Amino acid sequence: MSLLLQELSRSPFFLAAPKPQRLCSSPIGIEPSLNMFVGMGRPAWKEARLTLQRLLSAEDPTLRDNTSLREKSLLKMNEVEMLLPTVIGDYTDFFSSMHHAKNCGTIFRGPENPIPVNWFHLPIAYHGRASSVVISGTDIIRPRGQGYPTEKSPPYFGPTQKLDFELEMAAIVGPGNELGKSINVDEAADHIFGLVLMNDWSARDIQAWEYVPLGPFLGKSFGTTISPWIVTLDALEPFACDAPKQDPQPLPYLAESKHINYDIPLEVWIKPAGHEHPVIVTRSNFNNLYWTLTQQLAHHTINGCNLRPGDLLGTGTISGPEAESFGCLLELTWNGQKPLNLIGAARKFLEDGDEVFFTACCKGKDYNVGFGSCTGKVLPAIP
Amino acid sequence: MSLLLQELSRSPFFLAAPKPQRLCSSPIGIEPSLNMFVGMGRPAWKEARLTLQRLLSAEDPTLRDNTSLREKSLLKMNEVEMLLPTVIGDYTDFFSSMHHAKNCGTIFRGPENPIPVNWFHLPIAYHGRASSVVISGTDIIRPRGQGYPTEKSPPYFGPTQKLDFELEMAAIVGPGNELGKSINVDEAADHIFGLVLMNDWSARDIQAWEYVPLGPFLGKSFGTTISPWIVTLDALEPFACDAPKQDPQPLPYLAESKHINYDIPLEVWIKPAGHEHPVIVTRSNFNNLYWTLTQQLAHHTINGCNLRPGDLLGTGTISGPEAESFGCLLELTWNGQKPLNLIGAARKFLEDGDEVFFTACCKGKDYNVGFGSCTGKVLPAIP
Ligand SMILES: [Ca+2]
Ligand SMILES: [Ca+2]
Ligand SMILES: [Mg+2]
Ligand SMILES: [Mg+2]
Ligand code: NI
Repeated sequence: MSLLLQELSRSPFFLAAPKPQRLCSSPIGIEPSLNMFVGMGRPAWKEARLTLQRLLSAEDPTLRDNTSLREKSLLKMNEVEMLLPTVIGDYTDFFSSMHHAKNCGTIFRGPENPIPVNWFHLPIAYHGRASSVVISGTDIIRPRGQGYPTEKSPPYFGPTQKLDFELEMAAIVGPGNELGKSINVDEAADHIFGLVLMNDWSARDIQAWEYVPLGPFLGKSFGTTISPWIVTLDALEPFACDAPKQDPQPLPYLAESKHINYDIPLEVWIKPAGHEHPVIVTRSNFNNLYWTLTQQLAHHTINGCNLRPGDLLGTGTISGPEAESFGCLLELTWNGQKPLNLIGAARKFLEDGDEVFFTACCKGKDYNVGFGSCTGKVLPAIP
Repeated sequence: MSLLLQELSRSPFFLAAPKPQRLCSSPIGIEPSLNMFVGMGRPAWKEARLTLQRLLSAEDPTLRDNTSLREKSLLKMNEVEMLLPTVIGDYTDFFSSMHHAKNCGTIFRGPENPIPVNWFHLPIAYHGRASSVVISGTDIIRPRGQGYPTEKSPPYFGPTQKLDFELEMAAIVGPGNELGKSINVDEAADHIFGLVLMNDWSARDIQAWEYVPLGPFLGKSFGTTISPWIVTLDALEPFACDAPKQDPQPLPYLAESKHINYDIPLEVWIKPAGHEHPVIVTRSNFNNLYWTLTQQLAHHTINGCNLRPGDLLGTGTISGPEAESFGCLLELTWNGQKPLNLIGAARKFLEDGDEVFFTACCKGKDYNVGFGSCTGKVLPAIP
């Protein structure tokens, strides 16, 4: 079921009511995106959350005893078209799993010093493309581009031959900061509204050829999928766990008093065209991150760079230590050398018609916190 | 003088008039930014340009004979606060001057193969930070960040010690493209509304330490200054000139029937704190670009990446072949080894209080086309 805040907000108990009778003072359900709401900060988030929890509880009469309001505001999930939750001003992608950094470095640059020396000192990141962030369910057209030349032939040009997913989560920025002012790492959590699942689709042949010296560009910018609702940090608090001990000790601006990750089991499933069921290809966990969300955010602003409400901060591919927990096909098939077996279909990289599903679900004592779906189907390249 | 379109658009002759009497059908002067107008495409741009030229000609009575409208709509430049001309959804920065690529490669990676092998096959680029693009005149606070460690000490942390400017121009995107569809290189000019001057402020120590393997990030994202008005490609047509012959031949999707640059002389001046006058430090020209604006735009969309009206595409630092035409201090002082002499003040990199001025002016037979100013003053780092 999904709760239509627009209908609720029109009800006399909600925002339309004179101030003292209002249930909630936030503009959720009135603004076309959540940007204004996420910019209001934690007190507003907590109030809205409590209001919604109360409205949905068996004790509260507002919805329980008002059939017409209930019918108008509670819709089946399949009757609803989900949209991007915020207008994304800027999208940043980090590189925070050590296992992913090590595997990619080994594949691209060889086994001697696979992890660049700077990696342990700062949360490496680059800016991604905000315009091509799409909502779960949007088809992904196989991108065309240039790939590495061979000894004697010019660069390859055509549809990517190494289309990949990247299993990530992403933070949605809350209030953010003014240009020139940094956010202290111990206050960074107040600037994170919550998390979504994210698939940073990647074309490995395009990426490998273009990324020196200015980083990934067209190998990434053809599409990035996120899940449609944002799970707040408040809702994730019961799943907080210690983040890995860091060695070397981070610089003071990255040393935090509360160094935590969240225990969020993550899975990736692929359904080849014509297959009835998806096949699981990896099981990872958000707690594999070396650099925490708060360290990422503090680092992002240490130079005065301004974050705006609704900005998207991807974690980078979340790979675990075991081969079964790697977060992308590049790692899972070791750049195509060890194809995966999807019950009858071998996969080095994604093929046309493949549907990729990400799931994330925190298991509480007697409840789950789900992230909804983050899915996309690969369509053939446009000739 | 500046022409206040908001006032004009309220006049009975302009947009407020019933359609057949309207002078111009574009929403300029009504919308708070130019995004909708630049998205309308070349026919609308041409019509608006002709309308404004007519309004400002001695023959047309609309403004000439209407003192009150003239007083309300024509303001002295110093009475006007300039704003960013468009809301910038995404900001991309290219790397299109061969001289700049060669100099930076030599400085950062040594004189053997200073230019990466991919550089001659594609217009290299990365995504910059859209949120910190600011209008000319905005102060730039010296950013803090990490720099390279020495043999036995941890990474440097503090205010950048290598603050630099980068002399660039940038295209403002017109209609753009839908996600998944590419723009043909021979139609790319119809998607460029015009050009601005751009200073891509850079912290070289931060950049050098962070940029492997994902490219520049905090070394750039603390501020990027653009000039306040956009000179249209139509206005630049008289200054078109042949772009450099390319070897190797570009791939078909980058091979264009009209391979042109523009003859736009560019200058950089620095005024140290306490000095009365700025001192010129470089003279370059837009025609130093190896990859043209249209090649940049076509490449950007070849993978289906969507460009949106108002997006900003920086050219990269525009360095010429001679030492006096290099486009940044990194090159001009060879990474600080050969300080510049600013009449009594030696400069390896920018110091607090320095004001940096960019100018661009095309010299026609009996007229100039100016780009306005692109300036900023360096303020000390926040402790
Ligand atoms: Ca990624
Ligand atoms: Ca630049
Ligand atoms: Mg992506
Ligand atoms: Mg910049
Ligand atoms: Ni961006």
